[in-house]
This record gives sequence, structure tokens and C-alpha cells, in this order.
Amino acid sequence: MRIDLNSDLGESFGPWQMGDDKTMLTLVNSANIACGGHASDPDTMYETLKLAAKHGVTVGAHPGFNDREGFGRRDIPMSPQEIARMVAAQIGALVAVAKLVPVEVRYVKPHGALANLAARDMDVAVAISQAVRQIDGNLAVLAISGTCMEKAARDAGMTVFSEIFADRGYLSTGQLVPRGTTGAMIHDAEEAAERLVAFLKTGEMPVIDGNPIPLQAHSICVHGDSPGAVEMAREIRVRLKAEGVDLNAFLAP
Amino acid sequence: MRIDLNSDLGESFGPWQMGDDKTMLTLVNSANIACGGHASDPDTMYETLKLAAKHGVTVGAHPGFNDREGFGRRDIPMSPQEIARMVAAQIGALVAVAKLVPVEVRYVKPHGALANLAARDMDVAVAISQAVRQIDGNLAVLAISGTCMEKAARDAGMTVFSEIFADRGYLSTGQLVPRGTTGAMIHDAEEAAERLVAFLKTGEMPVIDGNPIPLQAHSICVHGDSPGAVEMAREIRVRLKAEGVDLNAFLAP
Amino acid sequence: MRIDLNSDLGESFGPWQMGDDKTMLTLVNSANIACGGHASDPDTMYETLKLAAKHGVTVGAHPGFNDREGFGRRDIPMSPQEIARMVAAQIGALVAVAKLVPVEVRYVKPHGALANLAARDMDVAVAISQAVRQIDGNLAVLAISGTCMEKAARDAGMTVFSEIFADRGYLSTGQLVPRGTTGAMIHDAEEAAERLVAFLKTGEMPVIDGNPIPLQAHSICVHGDSPGAVEMAREIRVRLKAEGVDLNAFLAP
Amino acid sequence: MRIDLNSDLGESFGPWQMGDDKTMLTLVNSANIACGGHASDPDTMYETLKLAAKHGVTVGAHPGFNDREGFGRRDIPMSPQEIARMVAAQIGALVAVAKLVPVEVRYVKPHGALANLAARDMDVAVAISQAVRQIDGNLAVLAISGTCMEKAARDAGMTVFSEIFADRGYLSTGQLVPRGTTGAMIHDAEEAAERLVAFLKTGEMPVIDGNPIPLQAHSICVHGDSPGAVEMAREIRVRLKAEGVDLNAFLAP
Repeated sequence: MRIDLNSDLGESFGPWQMGDDKTMLTLVNSANIACGGHASDPDTMYETLKLAAKHGVTVGAHPGFNDREGFGRRDIPMSPQEIARMVAAQIGALVAVAKLVPVEVRYVKPHGALANLAARDMDVAVAISQAVRQIDGNLAVLAISGTCMEKAARDAGMTVFSEIFADRGYLSTGQLVPRGTTGAMIHDAEEAAERLVAFLKTGEMPVIDGNPIPLQAHSICVHGDSPGAVEMAREIRVRLKAEGVDLNAFLAP
Repeated sequence: MRIDLNSDLGESFGPWQMGDDKTMLTLVNSANIACGGHASDPDTMYETLKLAAKHGVTVGAHPGFNDREGFGRRDIPMSPQEIARMVAAQIGALVAVAKLVPVEVRYVKPHGALANLAARDMDVAVAISQAVRQIDGNLAVLAISGTCMEKAARDAGMTVFSEIFADRGYLSTGQLVPRGTTGAMIHDAEEAAERLVAFLKTGEMPVIDGNPIPLQAHSICVHGDSPGAVEMAREIRVRLKAEGVDLNAFLAP
Repeated sequence: MRIDLNSDLGESFGPWQMGDDKTMLTLVNSANIACGGHASDPDTMYETLKLAAKHGVTVGAHPGFNDREGFGRRDIPMSPQEIARMVAAQIGALVAVAKLVPVEVRYVKPHGALANLAARDMDVAVAISQAVRQIDGNLAVLAISGTCMEKAARDAGMTVFSEIFADRGYLSTGQLVPRGTTGAMIHDAEEAAERLVAFLKTGEMPVIDGNPIPLQAHSICVHGDSPGAVEMAREIRVRLKAEGVDLNAFLAP
Repeated sequence: MRIDLNSDLGESFGPWQMGDDKTMLTLVNSANIACGGHASDPDTMYETLKLAAKHGVTVGAHPGFNDREGFGRRDIPMSPQEIARMVAAQIGALVAVAKLVPVEVRYVKPHGALANLAARDMDVAVAISQAVRQIDGNLAVLAISGTCMEKAARDAGMTVFSEIFADRGYLSTGQLVPRGTTGAMIHDAEEAAERLVAFLKTGEMPVIDGNPIPLQAHSICVHGDSPGAVEMAREIRVRLKAEGVDLNAFLAP
């Protein structure tokens, strides 16, 4: 039993802090680092990358819609080609700042509304995959398990890793329970950890509307920006380790 | 007699156009392309890079202060390290978008108030040089002749090219006549062209307060964003060619 | 026969110009002035307001989505209450800058995607109406004829004026022919002017799919930001005047 | 003995929180509310204004440089007239959003680098005073005691209130001890409270380089955005009340 813990980090902006990156970077294996689109700025990128490197955490680029006010959680109408260029500019920004540390950016994981769009819209998923591959053929993709994004990157012959969410409920279709619906969020750290242990032991994920379903996962996403994020990450880490799970990055730093 | 013509291009933003890039790209050898700081956005970057590639124009990154409202012409108080990270993020953005075309970004030339700061402040010049070198050891620097930026990049062992301005008057110190002073701007295209021919023939630049002074230059900067920019560039191109000057990029595209 | 000509102006931003406001302000009766959301900045507001005052042009606030990159033409997902606050902040900004001129802001007309949303979504139309009324009970609303925005403002007991478009084709439903469809745009100034004369004489607007329909209009919107905008406005002005139409603002400046 | 406690609030932005406004609004008499320049957005303005109204806290506009990344703490080069228009747009935005609550904006206090500039530069102070008066003759000014801003507003016949800082050391010139110098900051809440009690009893402020100096003050600024802000405000409130000081807003809500 082996898995990676990833979290969205580096989401501060100018004078504003988001989450407790310092602690989270002692708990996760991989850090998805904001690129100045939905959050971050060059100094925040640099400091987060430096801290990740110090802790031996693998870093990925976490591009999102250019929408700080909405934190990248709003659908901004854009064509797949516009998205590809926006994503390229963001990844490029992070990659260049990472060279000042220096540390290597190993993968790309879309953020928020962009991730949800790339999960369901194959044209967007293909456009993002292609952009990532053109920027650097060695960049992997971290995609939500079972989505267009995962399929598009795999079809393009890229290295793809799949993630599941520590704090979200699943449907028997493999989709997440929509936010705002009963069972969407798992707030209890212990409950979340139990469920992940069950999944890791069986390869099947409990769902709210039927029997557990088989899911592929190389990584577990633990959110870094909500209250209780650190506690959730810590609990999961402790529980998984107690069960003998090997917590390791899916890619070396 | 051989020289390059360069111009600041790709400075549109969203719905707003700046200058006539389409024509300018038929007249210059090198294009300094805005990176989303003082101007531009991912689509503007892409379209400008693609057009430059089509015309065989060499492209460079043109980072400036993150200040669209001031078009990068205002001094924004930042430490050299903050500037290094900002410049890195901008260069990285352009480099990544260029890979979608694909076309190679060959050099870096700071813009506006950042260029003036790097011309007079050695700490800033060193920070920028170092950042450029860390991002990609093959990137050259295009600096204003006789400035800290030129010296810092040379001291760092980088490939450096020097530029002079087609439409600016010079002092016997080698500095530009300050804007707002008599003789600062040369508005007449013919007069500007005459002066450049004289310089190319003798290696000495006429100044407003004494005898011509020796100046080093690999490139002539013709501005792209002022009214009459195209006429100025065209006149200079025609006159220099008539004098047998070989107009060629200082670096191959 | 009496009508007003209005145009969207003050849509420059920082160093970037949009349209030829100087000429347009000699041709129109009412100016919808951008408020720093989809376009403009405090200096652009001030200069446009000052020029409008000089030409005796009535000024209105022209709020749009906070989306300069998309020029307010993209739907940004926001709740009606979020829209109300955004619109309030923009109107307030323009009203305060107008006091420096001084000139009075007389009405509000939503811009672009926000106008289209307020045209079809009654909740948004009501939220905007209410915000405008709370800001200043004397502010009128300029709405697209036959829309939710017009109805909401009227139901709220506000002063409402209706507009039609000089350069857009109509359907027999009273809706505009969707952009991208044959007949959507009228590029020929003479044709546009003829159609408006016919409408003013009969009160019925020619449509592309049936007999002319009755439409209410206090104002004709002539666009200020497209090539040919000045020619279109000028032709319409000349033709309407030749037909004896009284071109006059729906509200005094 | 009577004084007002004021604090800079409403400085969150989009998803990012700044300080603990909810608690601070139970401790202060007057709230300087950010206007979307150095911080805030229409929703943050609305929520802060609403909460202030609920707690009976008097509200003022807190305009700053349009520089979120620098939180309004960097000098952005602008002419006095550009500053006047920027300040007007920000005040207008807050005033209009306040009408949605509804609550009245009673005064204006510049923020950060803009406040420091208006303290030392009479042209800027005059431009701001004039803009505030043109926007609404009933708006008061809250200025740092002994500055150009205070004098300009007084000379313009405006209602002016003066503030001192709870957590900053003073020089015998009446100026603040520059940040970064010994004695600049008072981190200990008890020490700060003692000093304020001494000042309120004698009308003289202890300084680090001589005998206490006479100072005029209608309000004490307690910062809201630093760690320990709430403790500092609470301690000062408790101590002043224990000494029989009447804590009351300088203007009714």
C-alpha cells in the first residue's frame, strides 16, 4: 500500500495569507503551487517553492482562471485555445521562478473551476494536455481520477497520475457528490482517514448511493485552504502510516 | 556597416490595441515582446510571437513593472530580489507561450522605468542578470549602451548586445537628453535617419552639448507605440539600406 | 419625431485608447461612460466627463463586469447581490469623479454581458434597479427596449428610457438577431440610417423574419468602439436631421 | 477625558481575509474602511459596512494607492491631480455601496503610503482635501496630528479630526519614529495603554528624545491587520475605561 498526499499551496497574494503552508509542507508529499492566476505572486511562488524544496516536497504547477477575486472558482468563458495560452503563461511563470530557487517543477494540476471544466470538457482537456507537452515533454499531469483530463493526457502519451479527494463524498458513477448536497463534504478527519484506509486496502471507494466502486489513485488531495486543513492532513497522515501505508511522492522532487 | 532594428511590440492588452505590430514586424529585425507585466496577455503574446516567427523576426522578452495602468513607466518601489522574481515570472510566461507557436525567445530587454532603473542601479542590474542566467543560460541581454545593465550582464559572462535610440538626443556623457528637455526627442524621421547614418559611418554619435562621442551599438531601438512610429521605422530602414547598411538581427531567430 | 443618440464612451484604459471619443462627443446626445469595471480608470473618467460637459452631452454611468481582459463581454458567474454591489461601486466611482468636473451623472446603462444578463434575467434586473435607486433616487435607467431591465426599473417606479441599436438587426420577437448570424450586424451606415428613419416615421422596426414590429425607443445606440463608428454616427445624424428629426438628449445634461 | 478609537478595517480581498474585523468592530468607535484600492472589493465593503452599522461604529473611507500587491504601502508616482481622481473614485465606490446597507460614510482618512505622502506633501494634501470637499461638503477628514493633510483640510474650512498612533513612538518634532529604528513600534499592549493614559491626562505625548510634547488628538489609531491587534485594542480600551476616559466616536454614525 503506497500513496502520495498532495495539497494546493502557495495561494497567498501580496499581503494576504492563505492557509498554513509552513505546516502543510511538513505533511504532504506533493505541493500544487499557484502560478499567479487565481492566486499568488512572484514572491509567494518563490517562498513556497523554496520551502517545498527544503522539505523535499515534489512541486507541481497549479494553474487556474485569471480571477483572483473569485479565487479561480468561477467559470470564465474562454475558448480551449485561450485556456491553453493562459495555462502556458502560468506554468512558464512558475517554472522560471523555480529556477531561481532552484527546484524542478515536475507536474501540472489544474485548479478549481478550470479543473472541473477540464474534467468534463474533452476539448479543454486536450488543449491543456497539448500545452503542457509543448512547454516541457517531461512534465507529468495530476488529474482527478476518471476525468477527461486524465484521459486526454494519457491519450497524448504523457505521464499521468490520478488523485482522489480526502474530504469529498463519491457517487457510484465515480463522480464527486456535488457541493451543497448531503454527503458532499467529509468534515470529520477520522471519518475521512477511515475511508481512505478502506480504499487503500481494497482499491474500492465507498459511495453514498451503492456499493464501493473501484478507483485508481496515485495521490490523495488534502485541501490546504480550509479551517481544519492541517488537522485533516495530520490525521490522515497518522492513520495511513499506522496502517503501514507508504506515503511517498508519485514523482521524486 | 551592420546593425539591427528592434522595437517594443506585443503591447496590446485585452480589447485594446497598441501600435501597428503587423507593419512594424515587416520593418524590424528583433521584437521585444511584452510579457504580461506592463502590457499584454497570453493571447497577445501568442499572436505577436506567431507573427514575429512568420516574418523571421528574432524575439526577446520585454519585462517591466507589473503596472498596466502606468504602462511600466512609473518607478514601483521594489527590492532587487523582488524585481528578479517578477522578471523571472514574466520571462517564463513568454517563454512558455512561445513554445506553443513554437518559436524561441533569444534575449531579454527590460522595459520603461525598469530599464531606466537597471541602467543606473547596479544592484538591480545584477539581480536581473542573475535571474536571466538562472532561467536559461542561453538567453542574451539587450541593454542600453553604457549602462549598469550592460556592465552587469557582461560581468556575469552573458552574451550582451547594446542598443541606441533612433529618436532620442544624446549628451556628451553618453546619457540620453532627459525627456521634457530641448533636444530630448527627435520627431523628424529624416533627421533621425541622418544621425544614425552618421553614427554608423563614424562610430560616433552627435550630442547636443559638444563633439560626437564614441558609442557601441548592435541595435537601434525604434519605438512602436507612438504616432509616426511606422513612418520613423520605415524611413530609417530605407535610408540605412540606401547607405549600404546591412540590417540584420544580432541573433538568429 | 424626436430621438436621442447615445454611445459607449470613456472606454480607454491607462495608456490604451479605445475609439474616438473626441469626435463621438460632437455627434451624440448622451454618453454612457465606463466606470473602471470593464474599462476606464479615474483619469479616463475625468477627461471623458469633462469633454462631455464641454459639449453639453448628457452623461450616464456604464457599469460592466470587472473584467478588463474580456472588456465586460464575458459572463462572470455572480449572484444578483454580488452584481448589485459591483454595480454600486462602479456607479459611485463615476459619480464622485464627476463631482470634480463638476458634471451630473443622470442615468445608468449596463454594459456588454451584464446588459445582456439584465435583459434576460429578472433577478439581476431587479437587483440592479434597486441598487441604482438606493444610490440616488434621481438616477434614470437606460435599458434595451423590451427587456427585463426595462421592466424591472419601470416596476420600481424609476424613470426609464428605452434604446434601440443603430447597427443591429431585429427579429419579429423584438430580440436582436444573435451575433454571428446573417443579418445580425448592419455595417452600411446608409442602410442603418434608412432603417432608423423608417422606424421613426412609423414607430415600427423592420425585422429579418416578418413584418415590422412596434418598438418603443427614446434613444438610438451608436457604437463608439468599432472601426467605422464615427462614420456610422455621423451618417445617422445627418440623415435623421435631414428628415427633420429632433436630436435631443432624453435628459438634460 | 474623551477620545475615539479608530482602526483600518475591511481590508480583506476576494478569498483572502485580513485581520479580525468582527472582533475589532466591537472594540473601536470609528472604522476606516478600504475602498477597493489597496484592498477590498464590493462584497467586502458591503459586509464590513453592514457589520459596522450593526455595532454602531462610525464609518470613514480609507482610500490608498491602487496597489493591492503592495497593500498601498508603496509610493506609486502620481501627480496630485491623478491622486485626487483616484481618491474620488475610491470614496465614491464606498459611499455608493454604503447606500445599499444603508449607512452613512462620515469622513475620509488616507491609507499607508498615500497617508504618508499627504502628511509631508502640501500639494497632495490640498488635492485630496479639495476632492473630498467636492464629493460631499459634509465629509470630515481624519488626519495624522501635525501633518500637511491636517493643515490643508483645516485651511479649506473642512471639519478635521486628528489622530495619534497607539503603537508608534514619537520624536520631539512631533514626527513618528521611523519604522526600523529603535523605539518605532510599541509591541507591548500594556506599555501602549500606559502611554495613552499619560497623554490623555496631560495632553503631552512622551517622546524618545526629550520631554513630552503637546499633541492634539481626537482619535487613537489601533492597527487591525497585525498579530496582536485585537489584544492591543482590547487592552487599550480596558485601561482607558478604567481611567475614566469616555470612548466615543468623534462623529456620530
